[in-house]
Amino acid sequence: MLHILYIIAITAEAMTAALSAGRRRMDWVGVCIIAWVTALGGGTLRNILLGHYPMTWVSHPEYLLITAGGALFAGLIASFMRRLRTLFLYLDALGLVVFTIIGCQVAEEMQLPAIIVMLSGVITGCAGGVLRDVLCNDIPLLFRKEIYASAAIVTGGIYLGLEALGLSSHWATIAAAVAGLLLRLLAIRYEWQMPKFVYEEEWE
Amino acid sequence: MLHILYIIAITAEAMTAALSAGRRRMDWVGVCIIAWVTALGGGTLRNILLGHYPMTWVSHPEYLLITAGGALFAGLIASFMRRLRTLFLYLDALGLVVFTIIGCQVAEEMQLPAIIVMLSGVITGCAGGVLRDVLCNDIPLLFRKEIYASAAIVTGGIYLGLEALGLSSHWATIAAAVAGLLLRLLAIRYEWQMPKFVYEEEWE
Amino acid sequence: MLHILYIIAITAEAMTAALSAGRRRMDWVGVCIIAWVTALGGGTLRNILLGHYPMTWVSHPEYLLITAGGALFAGLIASFMRRLRTLFLYLDALGLVVFTIIGCQVAEEMQLPAIIVMLSGVITGCAGGVLRDVLCNDIPLLFRKEIYASAAIVTGGIYLGLEALGLSSHWATIAAAVAGLLLRLLAIRYEWQMPKFVYEEEWE
Repeated sequence: MLHILYIIAITAEAMTAALSAGRRRMDWVGVCIIAWVTALGGGTLRNILLGHYPMTWVSHPEYLLITAGGALFAGLIASFMRRLRTLFLYLDALGLVVFTIIGCQVAEEMQLPAIIVMLSGVITGCAGGVLRDVLCNDIPLLFRKEIYASAAIVTGGIYLGLEALGLSSHWATIAAAVAGLLLRLLAIRYEWQMPKFVYEEEWE
Repeated sequence: MLHILYIIAITAEAMTAALSAGRRRMDWVGVCIIAWVTALGGGTLRNILLGHYPMTWVSHPEYLLITAGGALFAGLIASFMRRLRTLFLYLDALGLVVFTIIGCQVAEEMQLPAIIVMLSGVITGCAGGVLRDVLCNDIPLLFRKEIYASAAIVTGGIYLGLEALGLSSHWATIAAAVAGLLLRLLAIRYEWQMPKFVYEEEWE
Repeated sequence: MLHILYIIAITAEAMTAALSAGRRRMDWVGVCIIAWVTALGGGTLRNILLGHYPMTWVSHPEYLLITAGGALFAGLIASFMRRLRTLFLYLDALGLVVFTIIGCQVAEEMQLPAIIVMLSGVITGCAGGVLRDVLCNDIPLLFRKEIYASAAIVTGGIYLGLEALGLSSHWATIAAAVAGLLLRLLAIRYEWQMPKFVYEEEWE
């Protein structure tokens, strides 16, 4: 089940990433790379940091084909995708939550401490978008957008908390996914923002 | 033979990278770092992604000295290098092809599936330039330049295809290198471009 | 002793990094991430490149809490921190030297060749700031700032040189730290710069 949601989520991430690449007038190779980095980059960075080999896409190369296919398809139907904007925002929220829980599970299997399990979830959920923004030469949106990384933190926290209370991983996953998704969708709907730290002085 | 071409290629990449650094008024430390990242970054990223340790430059620290030497030398003869522009474009094409084949071979030795072997080649061939552009704060040229990553894909595809047809690695290397080089040089000469995906709408 | 200086240094790095994040109007999640990347990113990159697992902050998750706490505290006292500008410049110099020596020691324990030991020190000392600048979408300051990476090179060189002369690691550490710190502080005081390589021609 989580696996099916994962495939839907990476495809959706790849499709929206393709539009980012198109806005920067990249060629089709660039579109594929931006799509891969966005959809698979979070899990890849997590694996590099935790030393967890092989990468998901090395053992499942079909993920590379699915995401590349999604990105090229998005390029073809670009003008139509705009009407699906809301659907893709929802799918992005789904991806955030699914990736975060998968990231937590990977670190749990490695028996790492709770704070690292949380961080592993947040990195898996959010780092793909950061890498996309770095490659597109933007200041990462994540650092300034409405409740996004925070939704990943809440998802990971509920998942870990419920497991600590004795719930099975199965039910903890469902509860955390629903709560995280709800928080993210409410944040989009009402444009909730984390307080920003604004510092105007030049330091050096 | 491939080894000698590799040394020539990393030196040439380091030398042109030095000029990029000079255009951004970096000091000599920055010049060395940009040169290393450009010349050795593709193989390094490949090794990180595949979990293939140790890095080439850890077992062969002389590559660090050769590339740093090349970069500093390029700084000294900068005004002269402009006249060698065409030579260095050819050497860069040579590097692209040589790095790609080496990248394919590394993944083959790890017995990875064909699509990962191709990707390993493309990353080895192209990622150095992407990392250079990220550090120089540009949108990576790769994503928009004439047939470049595509030449790496063709090189890797021919190499793998000929091996699948029963050719020895030796002859597959030579055929793939010649074909890839020819494609890249024709692309430079006639300014062949991949179709670009241009998308003007603001999405969010 | 080195361990205590390390904790002081990562806290100070996290605090100044928080101000960088504030200057780009990031939210509190962004502030934490920039602080972590700046304070712990150098050691993390070194470990990735050398294949040295687990990461320091995976075995010592308390470092994540200390640096996040420092960053948030810096946000609270931002207007006051400006008066401590000189103190934080000194602490940054301390961090540079301490990180460099720790980086050298990690590579020494892995019995790597001398040039890799030096490079491991320089990466540990300097890469955090480079990663911060990439995430903040700047050309890395390191590549253009007064004697900074050079101070790391001198620190590593003295450390290795004294050990080669038969000094114990203990005394080599102290001598290298004092010399590196002195060089960096003099460079700040007198605005010493490395010669810059300026190249105005457009190449392609």
